[in-house]
Order: sequence, then structure tokens, then C-alpha cells
Amino acid sequence: MTSKAIAIVAGVGPGTGAAVARRFAAAYPVVLLARSPENYESLAKEINSSGGKALGISTDVSSPESLKQAFAAIEQEFPNAPIAAAIFNASGRFVRKPLLELTLEEFSAGHDVSVKGAFLFSQLVLPNLVKHAEDSSAKYPPTLIFTGATASVKANALMSSFASAKFAMRALSTSIAKEFAPKGVHVAHAIIDGVIDIPRTREWLKDAPPEAKIGADDIAESYWNLSTQGKRAFTNEIDIRPMLEKW
Amino acid sequence: MTSKAIAIVAGVGPGTGAAVARRFAAAYPVVLLARSPENYESLAKEINSSGGKALGISTDVSSPESLKQAFAAIEQEFPNAPIAAAIFNASGRFVRKPLLELTLEEFSAGHDVSVKGAFLFSQLVLPNLVKHAEDSSAKYPPTLIFTGATASVKANALMSSFASAKFAMRALSTSIAKEFAPKGVHVAHAIIDGVIDIPRTREWLKDAPPEAKIGADDIAESYWNLSTQGKRAFTNEIDIRPMLEKW
Amino acid sequence: MTSKAIAIVAGVGPGTGAAVARRFAAAYPVVLLARSPENYESLAKEINSSGGKALGISTDVSSPESLKQAFAAIEQEFPNAPIAAAIFNASGRFVRKPLLELTLEEFSAGHDVSVKGAFLFSQLVLPNLVKHAEDSSAKYPPTLIFTGATASVKANALMSSFASAKFAMRALSTSIAKEFAPKGVHVAHAIIDGVIDIPRTREWLKDAPPEAKIGADDIAESYWNLSTQGKRAFTNEIDIRPMLEKW
Amino acid sequence: MTSKAIAIVAGVGPGTGAAVARRFAAAYPVVLLARSPENYESLAKEINSSGGKALGISTDVSSPESLKQAFAAIEQEFPNAPIAAAIFNASGRFVRKPLLELTLEEFSAGHDVSVKGAFLFSQLVLPNLVKHAEDSSAKYPPTLIFTGATASVKANALMSSFASAKFAMRALSTSIAKEFAPKGVHVAHAIIDGVIDIPRTREWLKDAPPEAKIGADDIAESYWNLSTQGKRAFTNEIDIRPMLEKW
Repeated sequence: MTSKAIAIVAGVGPGTGAAVARRFAAAYPVVLLARSPENYESLAKEINSSGGKALGISTDVSSPESLKQAFAAIEQEFPNAPIAAAIFNASGRFVRKPLLELTLEEFSAGHDVSVKGAFLFSQLVLPNLVKHAEDSSAKYPPTLIFTGATASVKANALMSSFASAKFAMRALSTSIAKEFAPKGVHVAHAIIDGVIDIPRTREWLKDAPPEAKIGADDIAESYWNLSTQGKRAFTNEIDIRPMLEKW
Repeated sequence: MTSKAIAIVAGVGPGTGAAVARRFAAAYPVVLLARSPENYESLAKEINSSGGKALGISTDVSSPESLKQAFAAIEQEFPNAPIAAAIFNASGRFVRKPLLELTLEEFSAGHDVSVKGAFLFSQLVLPNLVKHAEDSSAKYPPTLIFTGATASVKANALMSSFASAKFAMRALSTSIAKEFAPKGVHVAHAIIDGVIDIPRTREWLKDAPPEAKIGADDIAESYWNLSTQGKRAFTNEIDIRPMLEKW
Repeated sequence: MTSKAIAIVAGVGPGTGAAVARRFAAAYPVVLLARSPENYESLAKEINSSGGKALGISTDVSSPESLKQAFAAIEQEFPNAPIAAAIFNASGRFVRKPLLELTLEEFSAGHDVSVKGAFLFSQLVLPNLVKHAEDSSAKYPPTLIFTGATASVKANALMSSFASAKFAMRALSTSIAKEFAPKGVHVAHAIIDGVIDIPRTREWLKDAPPEAKIGADDIAESYWNLSTQGKRAFTNEIDIRPMLEKW
Repeated sequence: MTSKAIAIVAGVGPGTGAAVARRFAAAYPVVLLARSPENYESLAKEINSSGGKALGISTDVSSPESLKQAFAAIEQEFPNAPIAAAIFNASGRFVRKPLLELTLEEFSAGHDVSVKGAFLFSQLVLPNLVKHAEDSSAKYPPTLIFTGATASVKANALMSSFASAKFAMRALSTSIAKEFAPKGVHVAHAIIDGVIDIPRTREWLKDAPPEAKIGADDIAESYWNLSTQGKRAFTNEIDIRPMLEKW
């Protein structure tokens, strides 16, 4: 007998991560991974008190040990549960600086989360996704989604840290997509091209109409749609931008 | 008072076009444009007899006159109807040949339908889409979708006619997307990367499992999802391939 | 006995075409194709009077008949001459306009020259290039170069005509490159990303330093370098921009 | 008074690095950086005994300390020398493996050299390149070239380590190019798409003709041509492949 499938969201903050968690919570128990409890506590409460099920776990996705502990906790709470969807939404600190002013640590910050973290997270979820893909009772092919950015395809001046990390994560996503699609796992990369409307960006574009920013709920809906595609129509990359974005 | 919104599918054949028409017919009256009545007659009958509404019109999308007549017929049947979604799915004859063996006519065949036709069709639907975008009663932003192919981004040997036409159509789609997004119109381009499972391709990959081909219904579902995105999350390009596709 | 190899430049005007012709005239007799004699007359005189050899021919590259006549004239002047380098530098009228204001003729103008013209020109030079590639006395692999633009890879608003034509030409170039490389022909596409410093652009960026514009002679030098690459290192695409260009 | 300009090649082995060093040694004293002396000793001897000047330094480009020592040695040998060209040709160990079999160390190996190393090397050469760019006696704009690979733009299955590192390096190159072009520094990225003909690859494609592999000397010639471009025509990316390569 198969346990109920779950969804895991790595990188839950007040924006995309939370919206994605809410959206997937309508269908699955969700696991919320974030560095600090304040990023998931109220969200977990909200989901748990409104008919869903959420488990928050403090996790540093760039640490193999921290991730291993998180997955042990997931296994304890949801033993043998197939993962229907795993969303890697974590992102390192954003450092916009002239190249000659960057410390090695600042330059590497993007890599630690977006590349190393994405790699470690993928290694932990993929065996489960492959197994779930062979499970004929699964409603949709199991899905692994990576959240990218403008910088995933465009490397601007002063953005060397973020862009090199995001380019690398996109390559990782594509390589995994090609290796695991034949095993039935759906891997997708989303280029989020614009400012997401979250508390932290409230002051940005503040005189512009709402359509100048991306709605986190809208991203979540697009992720949900990706996760429900069948084996005969995998989308491996989408871009998402608000209607007023210049590109 | 606003008339009920309609959807228009240009290029209705036994594959993607028909599936897209069926999917959008669940929400809107649909107009089916195809060069020959045999491409839409049974489909129109099927939709009309199962609770939907379909109007088939013989149209050559590469002819300004033919397109104008088609749109006059649409206006007569659905006066003042906003267009909720317009899908350009027409494609010229496919000629795979060494460059030196191509006649100018063969080389140009791709262009006539995929570029000139897409341009003419866009000019006819866009004024309506812009008007509809300003209509606050519209449920979703009006959407214009172009069906591309592997050859939209990859120009292989012997594919000069098809690839140059598909590259051009993709450029047209992007240019229109950028010009009309600020007016509230959602324009998307789909890279269909693989063999679609239709009667004509029955003999291809016939020893492969069903997941080696793209399901036309799955494409239609993805188009539907594109057409329901809000103004704060437009996807302008997706790729679609079956899980067993090499890419 | 082999005749002396020649170079052919299609699209000779006061900018890139003239500079390319001058550069290749240092090594080969050059054929100058341009719609109007005023585009090549003084240049031909200049080359012929300074030790080189140039033949100007009035040609409409979008017309099969006009091109055929031009190549007959070339054959008469340079019988059996191998073509060492053929440069397609012609470009249609540039129309920057809202999509809904474009006539079909305006939209198609880009295609007629950049796509149809490039196709026709390629069909006429390739048999010679293939033959020349097998000729062991050739110093360098014969080379076919297409002049592209920013719009070859970026389709901005209001640029649908130019961008769709340039995307198409790039696809044509790549398809030909892949088909003819195994036969020893080197095909390259140049993305000229910026304003070229020619009389017509004198008023543009006029308060900016010279490094804000591309030097036509510099483009010519890059084309020359492409044409001297050996069979073990073909470059199929380069971008060229001035140091002050934003990209 | 300005010292004679030098060139620095990071990542000197028996292939591209050595060929590039030989080519640039015809114009400049060259510095050869390689992890192990056996990679540069005979080359340095060869250059020094044939009229050129070469200085080999054992360097681990992924180590800030090692790089700093190398640049101190360079300053001692060539005090105040402007750097005319800096070529980053180092590449980490190549690990082709299923994602689930990669250790974190294996996955990160590509990053350490290709991304971290490229970043550290860039930070050390750029202040000199900027200064040299302002020096009116310089013959060509100072140039920084990064050696990429097929995996810089194509992330295949089993290639997650190499591709993510090479994508990241390409982003780094572009970001630096955009930041430093206005300061007169020319930055270029080369996509080496194919097998380079070096001792290590002797057994690969061994029944194929020589044109199935890339000549290291040909790459070197292309790098030289990049380094001689003027400020009005910077090429920021080239691809290089042998004529028999499928792409």
C-alpha cells in the first residue's frame, strides 16, 4: 500500500515559496524547508488550520548534514511517502557589485545555495521521484521544479555572482531533466523575469500599476500546472513575467 | 453589453489544432480555420453535437483576401464577440531536402504559411484582443498563441525552409509579445519538440512506447493553461516534449 | 589549371560591403553586387586604380533572373574561377513600425532580401564553393559569410519585419553550415550588434566617442580572419560590437 | 616609460594552452601557469630557446594564495609590465556520471577551477588590463579570453558537473565583458565544440580524418585574432569546431 504523496518546497519565504506551498497544500501534505523558523512557522500554522497539512523544518540547503536531517524528519513524519512534487526555490544572498569589489565569499554565496544546494536537494529527492514514477497509482508524473531568474539567461554587469550561479543551476536542471525524463520524472526550470510582489519589494516600482510586478500566487499556479502535465507533454522551461516588464 | 467571447484556431487538422479546438470549446464557441472543409467538418459536428459550438471556415491563411472573408464570416456569426484566445497553428508543407535541390517555391512554402500567414492572422485578431484586454469583464487576459517546433530554435541540415520559417515566426511572436503585453494581450510561443501522435505519424516510432510521442490533448491542455494566466504572470515561451524525447 | 580565386560581395554600399570588398581585394579579384551602380562605381574605380581588381554588377539579389545574369557576367569575366569567399551583406529596407500599421509589403521587404535573396545567392555560390573545397591548391577552405544584426537574435517591439527576416537568415546560415561543412565549406554568421559608422549614421550618437560605433573596416578584418580559418577550426558565429555598446 | 607588454596563459597543458602560449610568444613574453611543472617546463624551454621568452609558474588557479604568489613572481620578473592578453584556459577534472553517483566533491570539481578559478584570475588581471587600456601606446585593446566548451551552452545528461561549471564561467565572462568594455578591456568567450587533437585524445575518433578534430594551433590563431580586434569591433563570443563535427 502506498502512502499519500507529499510535496516538498525548499526555500520558503514570504514570496514564491509560500505561495507555492499554499497551492500544493490544496492537493498534498507539504514540507516547508527554510533556514529560519520565522520563514515557515506562520505559514505552517495557516495551512494546518485551514484543512491542509504542513511540516516546517529548519534547513540549510547548502549543508549536506542539514539536508540529511531534514529528510530524516520528513521520513519520520511521512514514512514511505512518495514525493509528488519537489520545488527548489532557495536562492543565496543577492550581491550586486563591481567585480573588483567582490570578496571570494560574496562571489561564492550564490553558488553555495543555488548550485550546491540544488545539487544536494536533487540527490535526495530523485530516488523517491524515480520510484514514484514507476508507481502506476500516481496521478501525475513526479515533478522537480527549479526557480530561476532573469539572471539564468542574461549575465549583466555587476551580476557575476548571481548570474553565474543561476546559469549553473539552469544547466543542472537541464542535465537532470535529460537524465531522468526517460525514468518518468518531469524536471522543469522557471525563468522568473521580473520583480515579485512581496513585502521586501514593496518600495520598488511603487508608483507603477500592479501589473508591473509578478504575483507570487500566479507563479504558484504555473508551477501547479507544470506538475500536472502528463508523460506525453513535459515542459522543461517556462518564462514568467508581468505584462509591464520590458525584456 | 458584451457578446460572449470566442476562440479562434487557425490550422485545424487531425492533431494539435483539433485537440486545441476541443479543449477551448469547453469554455468558448470556437472558430475552426483550415484550408479544406474535410479538416474541420467532422470536428465541428462533434463539438456542436456535444454541447459546444463550432464554426468551420475554409481559409488559406497565406491569402489576405481569404483571411478577410473568414473574419467577415466570424463577425457575421458572432457579432462584436471579443476573442478570448487566438491560436495560430497553421504550418506550411514540410520540405526536407538538400539546399541545392530546393526550388524557390519549395523553400518559400514554409514562409508563406508560418510567417506571412502568422503576420496576417495577427493583424486581424490583435485589434480585437487589445479591445478585449481593456474590458474589465474578461475573465483572463486575451491570448495569442503560436505553435512552433524543434526547428524554431534549431536549424539542422536539410531543414532550411522549415527552420528559417519557424525562426521567423518565433521572432514575430516575440516582437508582438513585447509590443502588446503593455496593452494587456498575452502572446506565447510553444516549441513543440517531438513527434505528435496523430494518424499521419502512426508508422513513426511505432515500436516505441506511447511516451515517445507528444499527445495532442496534452498540448491543448498546456495551451489552455497559458490562456488562463493572469496579467501578473505571462509565460511567453514554453517547450513541450514527450518524456522519451532526446534533446 | 585552376584560375585565380575570386571573392564576391553581395550588398555593397558605403559601409560594411565596401570595407569588406576593399579588404578581400588585397587578396583576390572582387565582384561587387549592388542594386544601383552608384553603390559600387567609385569603389570599383578605387580598387582597380590601386593595384586590385574589381568588377561591379547591378544586381537585385531578390530576383532569380537578376542574380543569374550577374553570375553569367562573373563567369564571363572570370571563367572557371573558384570562389574563395562569398559574403552576403545585402539587407532590405528597414521598417520600424507598430505591427498594426505595417502593410504586407512592408513586412515582407525584409524577407525578400535577407531570406529569399540569401537563399538564391547561396544556391548560386555553393556548387562552386564545394568544388573549390576539393581543390587541394586552395589556400583556405572556401567561405560563405552572412551579415546579421542585433535583430538576428533579439526580436524587439516594432521590429517584426526586420527581426523575423534576420532570424530566418540566421537559421538558413546554420542549416547551410551544417550541410556543407562536411564538404569542406566554411559558413559563418556575424551578429553585428551596434551602429556601424557610415555616412548615413553620421548624425546618430554624434556626441559619443568613436568607440560608440562599429568600424566597417574592423568588421571587414573580422570577416577576413573568418575566411582564413582552417578545416580544423571553423567559427560559425561571431558577434561584433563597439566597446561602448550596451548589450 | 612603459615596460614591454606580456601575455599570461592560465591552464597550460599539451593542447590549447601550449598552442596559445606559442602563438602569443611570437609577440609577447608569455607567462605559463599550470598546476604541475611538467605541464610547462619543456614548453618554456622550447619558447626560450627559439627566440621568445617564457616564464612557467606552478599555480593552482582555484587557490587565492597560489594565484597571489604566481602574480608576485610575475611582477618580479616583469615589473610594471602591462598585460596585453590574459587567457583563462584552465579546466577542472572531467566527471561524466549519473547524478546519483556523483559525490559532492566530484560535482564541485568543475566549479573550483572553471568558476572560482576564473573569478580569482580575473580579479588579478583586470586592474592591469584596465590600466593598460588607458595607455595610448598599446597596440591593441587588452584582452581577456575564457576557454569554454560544448557544455557551456548545452547541458547533457550525465554532464551536470562540467556543464554547470561551464555555464557559470560563460555568465562570468559575459558579466565581466559588459562591465569592463566601457573601460576599454576586450573580454571574449570561446565555445570549443569538439574534440581537440592532443596526445590524450589520440585514441578517440582515430579512424576519422584529421578534420574530425580541432587543431590546437587553429584555436590559438583564433584567439590571436580576437586579441587584435580594435575598440570598434569587439567579438565577445565565438564558437570553434572542426568541419566534421555534428552540431
